[in-house]
Amino acid sequence: MTVEQVKALVRNVPDFPIKGIQFKDITTILDDPEGLKWLRDEIVNHYKGLGITKIAGIESRGFIVAPSVAIELGIGFVPIRKKNKLPAETVSVTYQKEYGEDTIQMHKDALNVNDVVLIHDDILATGGSMEAAIELVKKLGVKKVYVNCAIELIGLEGRERLQGKAEEIYCLMGMEVDE
Amino acid sequence: MTVEQVKALVRNVPDFPIKGIQFKDITTILDDPEGLKWLRDEIVNHYKGLGITKIAGIESRGFIVAPSVAIELGIGFVPIRKKNKLPAETVSVTYQKEYGEDTIQMHKDALNVNDVVLIHDDILATGGSMEAAIELVKKLGVKKVYVNCAIELIGLEGRERLQGKAEEIYCLMGMEVDE
Repeated sequence: MTVEQVKALVRNVPDFPIKGIQFKDITTILDDPEGLKWLRDEIVNHYKGLGITKIAGIESRGFIVAPSVAIELGIGFVPIRKKNKLPAETVSVTYQKEYGEDTIQMHKDALNVNDVVLIHDDILATGGSMEAAIELVKKLGVKKVYVNCAIELIGLEGRERLQGKAEEIYCLMGMEVDE
Repeated sequence: MTVEQVKALVRNVPDFPIKGIQFKDITTILDDPEGLKWLRDEIVNHYKGLGITKIAGIESRGFIVAPSVAIELGIGFVPIRKKNKLPAETVSVTYQKEYGEDTIQMHKDALNVNDVVLIHDDILATGGSMEAAIELVKKLGVKKVYVNCAIELIGLEGRERLQGKAEEIYCLMGMEVDE
């Protein structure tokens, strides 16, 4: 499959979650066997050989592809969850959203100073939740942080916001907000 | 890895989410590369040859292993999500929880009358959310429904509650609630 074929699987849903937003629905990639496998394989191929020791996925769409990548790389998967979902001792980061704020958490023993961490989410938009995830992972003293998203929405300056905060920001597909 | 070795990776967290509950924390399986791969491979081995056409995962812990199984079986993954998270047209089921009620949704075009569906979640406890998920999937007129969980908590009668509602209920590990 080519990147253009996979991009063609993305469904544009107008006015979701609010009027004026063109939502990029990736469920139409996930329910296509070749599309789903392409996402996993592209990520695996990009990161193998970089010494990644853990993959962290951001709840909940970031949980979908990351563990399959972890299996192929022979490493573990770590969930970054919304507040009060993780049962053991956690670290937290609270960040501003368009309306109000949000808190994400990770188990304190999920990562350590020897880890090279890949943080994965499905879509990079304004970068707010990914910026918080980077801060969260760094609280555990890890060695290096890489950032990956399936889709990067061009023009929302997510990449600019994250610049210098990770070793690399790599997204599989760039798409215009109104594409 | 043996099932006993994987069970030993499960972390018991006392008094979560409320006092008196022994929470079975599976993040300690997920961050172990062999444990994570074992979960995937056991599910793949059990269901290959049964003609499964789609795997549905229940948000959000049911998103973690199901897509990796879908890739191995060469089929698509479909998310069952909490209310108002899916962008396109949905079907819904509302069900009673211990306190209050909850609604789950699935895209209307995610499944059809030709599908043989495997619904996956991490833990089968009282079976309330799985029962709702079965009802949801059946609303789309599918041919057959199979149910899989990584862990079955013995003594909560989840299996009894689901009996007769799916072709088969298969869990990888049985554990006592206070084990």
